Amino acid sequence: MSVNRSAATPVAPITPVKPINVPRGLAGVVVTDTEIGDVRGLEGFYHYRQYSAVDLAGTRGFEDVWHLLVHGELPDEARRSAFAAETAALRRLPDEVRTALPAIAAASGGSGPLAGMRTALSLLGAAKGFRPVYDIDADERRRDTVVAAAAVPTLLTALHRLGRGLDPVEPRDDLPYAANYLYMLTGSEPDPKRARAIEQYLISTIDHGFNASTFTARVIASTGADVAACLVGAVGALSGPLHGGAPSRALDTLDAIGTPDRIDAWIRERVLAGDRIMGFGHPVYRTEDPRSRMLREVAESFGGPRVEFAVQVERQVEAILAELKPGRELHTNVEFYAGVVMELCGLPREMFTPTFAAARVVGWGANILEQAADSKIIRPVARYVGPGAPVAVPAMV
Amino acid sequence: MSVNRSAATPVAPITPVKPINVPRGLAGVVVTDTEIGDVRGLEGFYHYRQYSAVDLAGTRGFEDVWHLLVHGELPDEARRSAFAAETAALRRLPDEVRTALPAIAAASGGSGPLAGMRTALSLLGAAKGFRPVYDIDADERRRDTVVAAAAVPTLLTALHRLGRGLDPVEPRDDLPYAANYLYMLTGSEPDPKRARAIEQYLISTIDHGFNASTFTARVIASTGADVAACLVGAVGALSGPLHGGAPSRALDTLDAIGTPDRIDAWIRERVLAGDRIMGFGHPVYRTEDPRSRMLREVAESFGGPRVEFAVQVERQVEAILAELKPGRELHTNVEFYAGVVMELCGLPREMFTPTFAAARVVGWGANILEQAADSKIIRPVARYVGPGAPVAVPAMV
Repeated sequence: MSVNRSAATPVAPITPVKPINVPRGLAGVVVTDTEIGDVRGLEGFYHYRQYSAVDLAGTRGFEDVWHLLVHGELPDEARRSAFAAETAALRRLPDEVRTALPAIAAASGGSGPLAGMRTALSLLGAAKGFRPVYDIDADERRRDTVVAAAAVPTLLTALHRLGRGLDPVEPRDDLPYAANYLYMLTGSEPDPKRARAIEQYLISTIDHGFNASTFTARVIASTGADVAACLVGAVGALSGPLHGGAPSRALDTLDAIGTPDRIDAWIRERVLAGDRIMGFGHPVYRTEDPRSRMLREVAESFGGPRVEFAVQVERQVEAILAELKPGRELHTNVEFYAGVVMELCGLPREMFTPTFAAARVVGWGANILEQAADSKIIRPVARYVGPGAPVAVPAMV
Repeated sequence: MSVNRSAATPVAPITPVKPINVPRGLAGVVVTDTEIGDVRGLEGFYHYRQYSAVDLAGTRGFEDVWHLLVHGELPDEARRSAFAAETAALRRLPDEVRTALPAIAAASGGSGPLAGMRTALSLLGAAKGFRPVYDIDADERRRDTVVAAAAVPTLLTALHRLGRGLDPVEPRDDLPYAANYLYMLTGSEPDPKRARAIEQYLISTIDHGFNASTFTARVIASTGADVAACLVGAVGALSGPLHGGAPSRALDTLDAIGTPDRIDAWIRERVLAGDRIMGFGHPVYRTEDPRSRMLREVAESFGGPRVEFAVQVERQVEAILAELKPGRELHTNVEFYAGVVMELCGLPREMFTPTFAAARVVGWGANILEQAADSKIIRPVARYVGPGAPVAVPAMV
C-alpha cells in the first residue's frame, strides 16, 4: 500500500505542549522502541534480533546477517541464494554515478575519508530515484536500503583507488560481499582466511545499540525523507570525533609505542597526563568489549610479531590502567583489534573507518525501515534564553 | 583555541542511566537552550535574536540578517560592507565542484529538487576542506557556515540550469545576495522590486524555531562532525514530506481550483473528504502565520489577477474552514503566499523548495555554531522490545 501522508494527513490539532526537562544530550531518554538489537554493557553482550552478534559473526556469512537485519530472520537456503544474487547484482554502479566518481574523489581529499562516501551515497540515491519513505511501501523501502548497502563497497573502493591514481575495479558477482570488497580494493582475489576475517569484522560492526549516527538516520527517516537522505546524515554523524569508531587510531598507538620495552613508560606518561589511550575504554561496556574478544581471537589465528605485540600492549595497558585508575574497568574496545585485523587483511588505514561505515549502512538501513513504519516525526523543542523580544529593529547605520 | 576533544577527552565515567520515558517523537522535550530565536504560536510572532523576523524582513537586507544570525548582532556600516564583500567573494565555486555539477544534475532528476543540493553541498564541504567542528575554533566554524551559505545559490541555480540544458550563470559580486540569486537563475539582472520581494521572502525563511531539519543539523554537530555533514543531514530532513516547507503545493491548489466560481465547491469537497488543503494550517500558529501576512502584503504590492485570485481563495477557504471546522483556527501558512510571491518573481516551481532551503542554510549554520559551542553529544536511547536474547544461532540450512 502506498500512502502519500504529506497529502492525506491533516495538520495535527494544536495543543501547546508543556516543556519537559531531561538530562543534557537526551541521555537516557527513550526515543523509540526497537526490535533490531541491543547492547548489555554490564554483561559485555550485544545482539542483533534474538541472536548474539558474536555468535552470528562466528557462524554465518555477511549476507545471512544482512538478511536477518533487513527481513527480520535468518534466511533458509533458497532465500540465502536469492538474497546473495539480488545483492551481488546491485554492486554495479549506475553510469551517472560512475562518471561522477573521479570528480568526487578529486574534491574529497581534504575532509576525511567519509566525505567522499557521503557525497557518493547522496548521488547514488538520487540516480536510483529513491523516493520519500512515507510515499512508498515497505518492499520499496527495503529495496532502497539494500540497493544502497550493496553499492557502498563499490563506491568506497572506487573512491579510494581513484584517490591514488588507480582505476576502480569492477565488482564481481561470484564472490560474497566481504571477499568482493577486498577484491575491489586490491584488484586480486583475497585468500579465504583474510576474506573470512574481514567478514567476521564486518558482521560484528553492522549494529551496536543506539548511537548518534543511528539516531540521526531515524530522525531524518521520521520526516519521511528518502533512504539516501537518512544514510547520508548518518555518515555525517559517524564522521564526528565524538561518535567514535576510528580503528586506525589504535594502530597509531601501537606505532607510537614501537617496541615492547617502551610500553610501560609510554602508557604511564599518557595516563598520568590525563590523555585517553586510543583503543581502550568504552562508554557502555563495564567488561571486556565482546567485539574486542572476538577480534583478538581472529587476529591470534593469524599469529606473527604484530599480533603478539598487540596482545602484549593490551595486557600491559590493562594492568597499568587497573593500577592507576582502579575500579574504572578500562579494557580494549572494538577499535583496538579491529585495527589489527584490518591491517592483517591488507586494508590501508584510511579505509578502516569507511569499512566500518560500509557494514554499518546495513544497520542504519534496518533502523530506517523500523522508523519508517512509525508515522511520528521526531522533533523536540529548544528553550529560548536570549534577550527578550521584540526589540525595535535599529535604523540602518 | 583549537581543541582536539577526540584525543583529549577521557571516556566518560560509566554510569548506567535509568531510562526516561517521554512523549512520542520527543514532543515537548527540551533538547537545548538557544539564543537564536523562537516562535510564539499563540501570538503569531517569531523572532531572530531579539528582533521580530517580519520587522527585519521589512527593513533590512539579507546580508544584515545573515550577519545577525551568524555574529549575534546587526552590522554597522563598516561591518555590513565587509560582510557583503566577504560573502560575495565566496559565491564562486571551486573548480572541482564546478566540473562535477553536470554529472550531479544528470543523476539527480529522479529524487526531488533537494537531492542535487544535498550532493553538491556535500561535495563543496569536502572541496573546501571543512574539518570537524570540535577540531577547529569558533572563527573557522563561522567561516565554514558562511562559505556554505554563500555558495548554495550558485550550486542551486547551476543545477537547475544544467537540468534544463542551459549553461550555469557565473555569480556577480556587485549584486546583493537576493538579486544575484535571481540573476544566476535567469541570466538577467532582476528589477529592484522583484529582487526586494524575494529578499523579504528569504529573510523571513532563515529560521523558524526548532524544527526537524534544525534538530538534525544539531544532532550531527553534537558529534563534532564538519559543517557540511550537518547541513547535508538538514537538507535530507527538509526533504521529508512531514517536515513541511513545499510552497509549490499551495500554487498547485490555486491551479486545481482554476477560477473564482469553483472555489466554494472545490474546497468543501476536499474538507469534507478529510483532505488537508495545502497552504492552510500550521502545527504551531493559532493565529495567522506572520510570514503569510507579510508575504500577502508583498504580493498585493504587485497586484494583478493572480494575486487577486489568491486573496479571494484565502478569504473563502478561511470562511469555509471556520464554518466546517469551528475553533480550529486554520489560516494560510507560509507556503500559500510564498508560492505566490516566488511566482511573481519569476521562480519556476521546482525551485521553490530549494529557494526555501537556501535561506534556511543560514539558520542551520547559526544552530550548528551554537551546538558546536556545547560539548555534549545528543544521544538518546532505544528500548529493545524484540524476542529475548540470546537464542542459539540455528545451523545453516
